[in-house]
Amino acid sequence: MAGEGAFGLKDDAALIRSRARHDLVVTTDAISESTDFLPSDPPHTIAQKALRVNLSDLAAKGAEPAFYLLNLSLPHGVREDWLAAFAAGLKADQQQFGVALLGGDTGATDGPLSIAVTAFGFVPSGRMVRRSGAKVGDAVYVTGTIGDSGGGLAIFKRERHSLSEAERDQLTTRYRVPEPAVSFAAALRGIAHAAIDVSDGLIADLGHLAAASGVRIVVQGEQVPLSAPLRALWTDKAVTRAVTAGDDYQIAFTAPPSLEGPFTAIGRVEEGEGVDLLLGGQKLALPSGGYKHF
Amino acid sequence: MAGEGAFGLKDDAALIRSRARHDLVVTTDAISESTDFLPSDPPHTIAQKALRVNLSDLAAKGAEPAFYLLNLSLPHGVREDWLAAFAAGLKADQQQFGVALLGGDTGATDGPLSIAVTAFGFVPSGRMVRRSGAKVGDAVYVTGTIGDSGGGLAIFKRERHSLSEAERDQLTTRYRVPEPAVSFAAALRGIAHAAIDVSDGLIADLGHLAAASGVRIVVQGEQVPLSAPLRALWTDKAVTRAVTAGDDYQIAFTAPPSLEGPFTAIGRVEEGEGVDLLLGGQKLALPSGGYKHF
Repeated sequence: MAGEGAFGLKDDAALIRSRARHDLVVTTDAISESTDFLPSDPPHTIAQKALRVNLSDLAAKGAEPAFYLLNLSLPHGVREDWLAAFAAGLKADQQQFGVALLGGDTGATDGPLSIAVTAFGFVPSGRMVRRSGAKVGDAVYVTGTIGDSGGGLAIFKRERHSLSEAERDQLTTRYRVPEPAVSFAAALRGIAHAAIDVSDGLIADLGHLAAASGVRIVVQGEQVPLSAPLRALWTDKAVTRAVTAGDDYQIAFTAPPSLEGPFTAIGRVEEGEGVDLLLGGQKLALPSGGYKHF
Repeated sequence: MAGEGAFGLKDDAALIRSRARHDLVVTTDAISESTDFLPSDPPHTIAQKALRVNLSDLAAKGAEPAFYLLNLSLPHGVREDWLAAFAAGLKADQQQFGVALLGGDTGATDGPLSIAVTAFGFVPSGRMVRRSGAKVGDAVYVTGTIGDSGGGLAIFKRERHSLSEAERDQLTTRYRVPEPAVSFAAALRGIAHAAIDVSDGLIADLGHLAAASGVRIVVQGEQVPLSAPLRALWTDKAVTRAVTAGDDYQIAFTAPPSLEGPFTAIGRVEEGEGVDLLLGGQKLALPSGGYKHF
């Protein structure tokens, strides 16, 4: 079962030496064709998405990425040039994010292509940012913009639009290649009381954070950062679709109010439970579960 | 993508605190329906096989298991009772082997059921047993018996036989539920110069070890430990089929000659390269590659 494939381990296992005064943070996420990426996606972006969704989890915990393991389930008949492009995508991201491949496992499958990555990062001891530390009175912040990936997927699914080619590419690129806030991890540790990776959808993930922290979160819809192409695509539905779209791979966190940095204040932490979205002075009813696999 | 399923993480990531004077050993292996287990296998044995193939890798490195992560790709329509039985299989093994679930990810797939496990163990610093330490003059040893799992698979594939029900069950059980030599890990560290988990087939895996160590390995076919049911099943082909069957999850290792313990001496390390199998005074030509996924 331990493959001697292109990404195989050089031994049965890999060694991670402990780093003085640091904890190791571990996360694992798998992506599958049709569920998490499209059959038409280029191999190098599939590889990068598989890695980056995990780097996003590490960043949301305040951890700097260090290593990863790869489990590749390949449909029969995958070609050498496909694998070469896939490996090139990984290699580029290894350089960009400073992560090294520790090893992995390659197997054949009768099913669709699936890639599981386990990523490892380090945080100074005791400094991992959890979902559970939000305090009443905190502000809620988010990095980057929300909904672009969902907009890109809608375009791939042939939703009608009148975007320019550049606007369209901005959204579809974000679906294929997330831009996790890796460089923000160290700063996050310094300010955040609680944080979560936005993957299921902003409202759903804030719901997980609220539940873990035992608080209520109120989001001001008008303050949710949206890109210009996404506003053009979804017009008056942009906020409600963006906050439930998922696949953002940004960081939502709570911290003291009135902070400034590479993030946007979008709401506040109150007593209670659940997440409310306020838009145009109205409280919107939203499905609480977010994206469900089954 | 990070599921809130039965096996989901409580946070985006898990924390592994470093253990003083120990290194962390990490391995990952995935198993898929039809490739590594049968559609008719019970869910609790599928769970145990997924975990145990990884515990076997840790044991072969001299590491004591501590934690694992689970990536579960579930076909649509998997039922609650299936998941409950799967979880019960994991729970039993967690107790038996002293490992804790750190977290994981559950997703839906259009393909066959697939389970990727990443397992973590500890070894005293610098004591991980590698594939690459075999020395000319070492003896080659193996734990347990070889070929039982392959015999079990042959029976599932309706190979004709005249075994009793008890003999048949001994082999088929070994296919479904490997018995990794976890309790041997600490002793292995004390004696082995090099070791490998036997998963691709004894000859193929010794080939990996020989290549990593820059030596030749000569196996005395008559000394390869075979169970009575396997001898009854495969008769005069028992040795040659057993050493190429795979899925054994025993440990092959090299160490000084004439050692005694819960293992069998099967050969020796010489100068040169590759693996020779001697049987009845003859050198047998064997496919060197072992089991290939693609």
